Amino acid sequence: MLLSLLHRRSHHHLHRLRLLLLLRHLPQQSKPLSTLTIPLSHPTYIIWSSNTSLGKTLVSTGLSSSFLLSPPSSNTKKFLYLKPLQTGFPSDSDSRFLFQKLSSLSLRRNLPLVSSHSILLSSLPAANSFKPNNFSFNELQGLCELGFYEERKVLVEGSVTPELVSETLYAWEGALSPHLAAEKEGGAVGDSEVVKHVERRLREGLLEGGVERGRLDGFCVIETAGGVASPGPTGTLQCDLYRPLRFPGVLVGDGRLGGISATISAYESLKLRGYDVVAIVIEDHGLVNEIPLMSYLRNRVPVLVLPPIPQDPSNNLLEWFDESHNVFNSLKNILLEAYLERILGFNEMARRAGDVFWWPFTQHKLVPPCSVTVIDSRCGENFSVYKVQNKEFITQQFDACASWWTQGPDAALQTELARDMGYAAARFGHVMFPENVYEPALECAELLLDGVGKGWASRVYFSDNGSTAIEIALKMAFRKFSSDHGILPELFENNSAERCIELMVLALKGSYHGDTLGAMEAQAPSSYTGFLQQPWYTGKGLFLDPPTVFMHNGKWNLSLPEVFHSETLRPEDMTFRSRDEIFLKSRDKSNLAGLYSSFASQQLSQCSGLSSIKQIGALIIEPVIQGAGGMHMVDPLFQRMLVNECRRCRIPVIFDEVFTGFWRLGVEAAAELLGCVPDIACFAKLMTGGIIPLAATLATAAVFDSFTGDSKLKALLHGHSYSAHAMGCTAAAKSIIWFKDPTTNLNITSEKSQKMLLRELWDAELVQQISSHPSVSRVVTLGTLFALELQADGSNAGYASVYASSLLQMLREDGVYMRPLGNVIYLMCGPCTSPEICRQQVIKLYRRLEEFTNQNQLGK
Amino acid sequence: MLLSLLHRRSHHHLHRLRLLLLLRHLPQQSKPLSTLTIPLSHPTYIIWSSNTSLGKTLVSTGLSSSFLLSPPSSNTKKFLYLKPLQTGFPSDSDSRFLFQKLSSLSLRRNLPLVSSHSILLSSLPAANSFKPNNFSFNELQGLCELGFYEERKVLVEGSVTPELVSETLYAWEGALSPHLAAEKEGGAVGDSEVVKHVERRLREGLLEGGVERGRLDGFCVIETAGGVASPGPTGTLQCDLYRPLRFPGVLVGDGRLGGISATISAYESLKLRGYDVVAIVIEDHGLVNEIPLMSYLRNRVPVLVLPPIPQDPSNNLLEWFDESHNVFNSLKNILLEAYLERILGFNEMARRAGDVFWWPFTQHKLVPPCSVTVIDSRCGENFSVYKVQNKEFITQQFDACASWWTQGPDAALQTELARDMGYAAARFGHVMFPENVYEPALECAELLLDGVGKGWASRVYFSDNGSTAIEIALKMAFRKFSSDHGILPELFENNSAERCIELMVLALKGSYHGDTLGAMEAQAPSSYTGFLQQPWYTGKGLFLDPPTVFMHNGKWNLSLPEVFHSETLRPEDMTFRSRDEIFLKSRDKSNLAGLYSSFASQQLSQCSGLSSIKQIGALIIEPVIQGAGGMHMVDPLFQRMLVNECRRCRIPVIFDEVFTGFWRLGVEAAAELLGCVPDIACFAKLMTGGIIPLAATLATAAVFDSFTGDSKLKALLHGHSYSAHAMGCTAAAKSIIWFKDPTTNLNITSEKSQKMLLRELWDAELVQQISSHPSVSRVVTLGTLFALELQADGSNAGYASVYASSLLQMLREDGVYMRPLGNVIYLMCGPCTSPEICRQQVIKLYRRLEEFTNQNQLGK
Repeated sequence: MLLSLLHRRSHHHLHRLRLLLLLRHLPQQSKPLSTLTIPLSHPTYIIWSSNTSLGKTLVSTGLSSSFLLSPPSSNTKKFLYLKPLQTGFPSDSDSRFLFQKLSSLSLRRNLPLVSSHSILLSSLPAANSFKPNNFSFNELQGLCELGFYEERKVLVEGSVTPELVSETLYAWEGALSPHLAAEKEGGAVGDSEVVKHVERRLREGLLEGGVERGRLDGFCVIETAGGVASPGPTGTLQCDLYRPLRFPGVLVGDGRLGGISATISAYESLKLRGYDVVAIVIEDHGLVNEIPLMSYLRNRVPVLVLPPIPQDPSNNLLEWFDESHNVFNSLKNILLEAYLERILGFNEMARRAGDVFWWPFTQHKLVPPCSVTVIDSRCGENFSVYKVQNKEFITQQFDACASWWTQGPDAALQTELARDMGYAAARFGHVMFPENVYEPALECAELLLDGVGKGWASRVYFSDNGSTAIEIALKMAFRKFSSDHGILPELFENNSAERCIELMVLALKGSYHGDTLGAMEAQAPSSYTGFLQQPWYTGKGLFLDPPTVFMHNGKWNLSLPEVFHSETLRPEDMTFRSRDEIFLKSRDKSNLAGLYSSFASQQLSQCSGLSSIKQIGALIIEPVIQGAGGMHMVDPLFQRMLVNECRRCRIPVIFDEVFTGFWRLGVEAAAELLGCVPDIACFAKLMTGGIIPLAATLATAAVFDSFTGDSKLKALLHGHSYSAHAMGCTAAAKSIIWFKDPTTNLNITSEKSQKMLLRELWDAELVQQISSHPSVSRVVTLGTLFALELQADGSNAGYASVYASSLLQMLREDGVYMRPLGNVIYLMCGPCTSPEICRQQVIKLYRRLEEFTNQNQLGK
Repeated sequence: MLLSLLHRRSHHHLHRLRLLLLLRHLPQQSKPLSTLTIPLSHPTYIIWSSNTSLGKTLVSTGLSSSFLLSPPSSNTKKFLYLKPLQTGFPSDSDSRFLFQKLSSLSLRRNLPLVSSHSILLSSLPAANSFKPNNFSFNELQGLCELGFYEERKVLVEGSVTPELVSETLYAWEGALSPHLAAEKEGGAVGDSEVVKHVERRLREGLLEGGVERGRLDGFCVIETAGGVASPGPTGTLQCDLYRPLRFPGVLVGDGRLGGISATISAYESLKLRGYDVVAIVIEDHGLVNEIPLMSYLRNRVPVLVLPPIPQDPSNNLLEWFDESHNVFNSLKNILLEAYLERILGFNEMARRAGDVFWWPFTQHKLVPPCSVTVIDSRCGENFSVYKVQNKEFITQQFDACASWWTQGPDAALQTELARDMGYAAARFGHVMFPENVYEPALECAELLLDGVGKGWASRVYFSDNGSTAIEIALKMAFRKFSSDHGILPELFENNSAERCIELMVLALKGSYHGDTLGAMEAQAPSSYTGFLQQPWYTGKGLFLDPPTVFMHNGKWNLSLPEVFHSETLRPEDMTFRSRDEIFLKSRDKSNLAGLYSSFASQQLSQCSGLSSIKQIGALIIEPVIQGAGGMHMVDPLFQRMLVNECRRCRIPVIFDEVFTGFWRLGVEAAAELLGCVPDIACFAKLMTGGIIPLAATLATAAVFDSFTGDSKLKALLHGHSYSAHAMGCTAAAKSIIWFKDPTTNLNITSEKSQKMLLRELWDAELVQQISSHPSVSRVVTLGTLFALELQADGSNAGYASVYASSLLQMLREDGVYMRPLGNVIYLMCGPCTSPEICRQQVIKLYRRLEEFTNQNQLGK
């Protein structure tokens, strides 16, 4: 029973008008740049190399000749060759080389071929040297549109004519790395522009030619420039630049002395970016480099050896191509086979998953194979999801669950973390923790104490997840309480199993502290705690109904449980002028503070006194936001008053920051928002940046001291084998530093004195609009969280509701991956996600909310 | 109260005699090859390069000149240069180049220098070409001892004379990669031999010269051959070959076109082996490669640029060295500073750890800083531990806790896993699991069902650790039981919180199923469950005292709880002729089987019937070995009879294979040893190879079906954010395959029909000897486990005992890292650990047991 001072008015119309005005200003953003649709209807490979001049273009040419210039087939074959970045142009042009060579080979072999060659864009100096018929210089881009196109035809009567399309996307004159050429000549085309351009050419290139759909009739190759980690035009390494596409690759290795090492290192750089390498090709230099390479690869990746390449510049290489024919045929077959296997794999994954997985929190009967999401990879904020709609493709979806509340890295941090994970595993594997010290654990512990534990914590207890961190916290708190209150001191001697006192927690209704039984006992009865789920659950707590705050109709409101209703409260006590006001310390002097405080005091006094068997031994709260309970924002004033009262009674205070910690709510620890500190706090999820499980329970020196003594039996006898595992601690240390460094996390501001905050990520105007939407009953935005509750009743409300499904389905089509908490839905981003990306998701959400509302109205 | 048919005889003397005989045969093995002692009393760096011919030797030379040929100091400085592997010899000799150049530079700069040059070993062809005065050919090694030594002195009056020692350890004639040269010319020196040789030269090199101890007076450089991943003489990549030493490195990168990529890739290969790179050096080719390199490195590693190197072969480079003087000085200072920082860091780690850590299962008062182990890294089975005993050094310790029961990889698998961890993090970061599928999770689940779950399991539920896997298993079992027995069907509708029935487990005393409260409730009262530790523990089970088996005096014995004592048992029923006999299915027909069976049946009947409030809803056992309870081996016949009886009563059976799974006991799942299957089984620890937390609860289709229905509330509402995380599943999939593949795990045998087993890892004769030792009350060996209980009574026995401390202290000095379970100690290895390594540890243990016994006798 909540008191609500809201006046729900249907201003749907007015509001829709405002939205239209709002959206009119955003024509460009409506199709966000980040969403890629990557066709998979034909095999596509990236040609990488461990260095320049090892023969990438020869391999591309050989592949295209093997694909196109083979015994005639009934289908029209088409080969698309893309050279996204060409330097040294026009003297060097790999797309021209391939075009010319293939024409010559078709003549030589008397096989038909239609081939075309285009150069699309170049720097001004390159255009001036090249001098095509006419070109236009786009000053904004610093690039010239060359519009250069040439074509050749070799026709053979009675044969179907295969087609070659050879294209250079961007060219510069200097025979330099693209980043230097672009710096010198202009045309520093952006990373996402290059990727989008490649994506567009892939989508259009094979269709335009009119090739009928048929997997093995098309083949695409994207040839990189230089080595795998050579910089692109902005300086981004090419292996990072092309990462959102994540096509499988062919690595052109090095057959010379030293080439084993160079090839292996290049291979490892690709693996460290999450690429698959399907084949390695090297030139024969008589050193049988393939043997150690195969041994290193444990025969999992084939290594093909090309005959020595004639060094004489006058050699037209046609004979060499003839000689290499078998090698290229093998390569082609390997690539076709790997492609088919990949597609087959994709197509079977959903079914196979449905056969063997037992997903958590999932009613399998409600998950048909078609609704299973097949995730090929993730890059920063986006999943790459495999889909079939007429054709196979991979599309990006913004991970609005922020991978179930853990995910933090942008693409740059992800790459760094990947390297660090490799390093930590190689350096430490796993080493047991008790009585030992190793760098990552120590660094992580010190960063925690200097960050989220600053000013109060002095010890770090590591475990594996939020649940275990909470169980440890409860053990700590109860010991401290028992020790402070002289309860059962004899137990400290004989460790008797008799229980004369039942220790309970003070906790809030709607809280959720984890899934293991001990953590569960600290939450109020809920859908999760029935006999059906938890036969052992009894609910060992005093559970209070908390006052909550939320935005509705553009205003922040307070919702008070009945117990707080009082004549001393005026209507203006029930709203806030801004979200900031909610957190003001000055509210401590308000009437409400008095009400909260005396309520807390009264509750505690009911449960205290030595005569009572049940005693409150700990306060446990999720500061500010109750996550799993439905993204409710608890009035921080209430929580602060509870903490104060507990402290007065020497009841240890536990903050469950598993969800709220590490910038989830815009500050490093949500305790900062409450303006008070705990005795014990639990962290997990985002602590490692969100890529690997690790949890920590922080405690004060006084809590720690209640476990020291002469006997091992007085120590905290709880621990998991992977306590403080090296990879987890490495990831945590890296992420903690990264998130709060303004040079790596552009969202960090420290406006108000020295307190660090994330800037506001959710467009204020849009948020207000949505909070006024008739389908929305409340909105909460804070830090990386944007949550809203859909107006619903009956079975449409609550955790088991599937009310939001159709809305979320539409959003998935827009590239937003959400998962509901019943009729509560949310967008979650990482601490480094740009406000622009957030804004795009909110706009999509808003648009689909309209449709959802209309559907529901029609349905009624 | 146990019945024991043992006849303890003091045959100490006889037994010692046998040991002596035994040890006489092992003079070589007594100092195991694998134990390295790596001096840290002077800065030592490995010089790596991204390819051949980039100037490693110039950098070594420049460094030595900066170190030795600088303004005179009062101390005698000494620089040790080691070229472990030289090919193209004698025309190429990097140690000679450095020796000659430095002599010339000292003359040119008029600075004193004593320099020496040695070539120690070479192939026969190299020796024949080189023709030193006399050399001897060691046919066994295939190497010549050259004994070549030359010396030069440039003395300047009144100055202290610094000293250069320049050495080549192994030389081949061919200008090829060492693996090809060794293949062609012989002298394929083993990896550990090379490493040991380097270690020896480092230990002796600086001492022999009589340099007084003083960190900055000595400097060592180890120059590799070719690129970072160029093969050594056996084909092992050099970055893998030198990994046990893990000295920090200088990377000589590539300043040419394409060099950014090559340098970054080489850097990443080093990181992927757990190396630290302290500085990168490149030659200036006018391409400012240092800019993108610094940007990639985020300025964390300095990049130094050398002036262009004259290409004219007649140039003696002396001017170039003068020109480069400042760069080499900077490099030297960077390396000295990094060295001091490293040592300082090591020296402070134990204290810092003691200040901030809260170790699990550890009474901090009993851990003074001096007893904290500072672990620099691990490589395969060994920790590398930092120690100070007069001097600073790093020493290897065999991780006999197998990192607290998780560790599996040998050095080769560790490297592969590290690469896979980088790949998984880069490809997936973390992606949420429910309703999704991604490759590693699917592969892992299918491998589990096809391996440890084969023949019974059809679903995989992922979580984070053994504890959570057990809690999930209990929820599964209770639901299945309730559903099968028609208990509270109305709860399936309204999910009422009323509890009219209390479900309990049937479990064994001495079992341990994890640290969270739910898992704890399934164990009998113990040191871990008192009010002090677990205020909420009540012990929700019927706990039976199990019969156990163990070896004593070389024989396997059965120890029966009193309840089984019976006149039908003969003395021969209480011993086994071999360990294999214990596991024979034919025992099902024995008297004992009948006793066990009727006992189980009687216990169950006491707790069943619809009238009873307490009902047994699950059987939970650790198959065969109870780990944390003290490494007790339970009679498998007893467990099998329990399983049979429970099955008869439709009580779901849970196998807790968290400790026993994945070859810990010599078979992939310990269920194989029991000869029966469960309904639910839990796995964790070794599942990922032991490097990252991940757990799985496997279940039958019937168990799964009891959770399907129309409502989400009927689903299993338990889950952790990192469920089925990509890195964990990747590691698990890799390790599962690796461990059972006879080509990667040489311990795999499949002698008996198709059943795969690990070969016996613990020397049978030694084990028998130890089981007869007067200080040893019992021994259990099975698979990777060798456990023994020290004869102890009073406070010396039990979990809190510190009785074993002095024994373990001695063993640490021998390079064996153990941690006791009270008076039970154990050696644990990985599934791939060679029997020879195991044997070495047992010998060490045996020797120290003798000493320990003598100490204790003296103490009495």
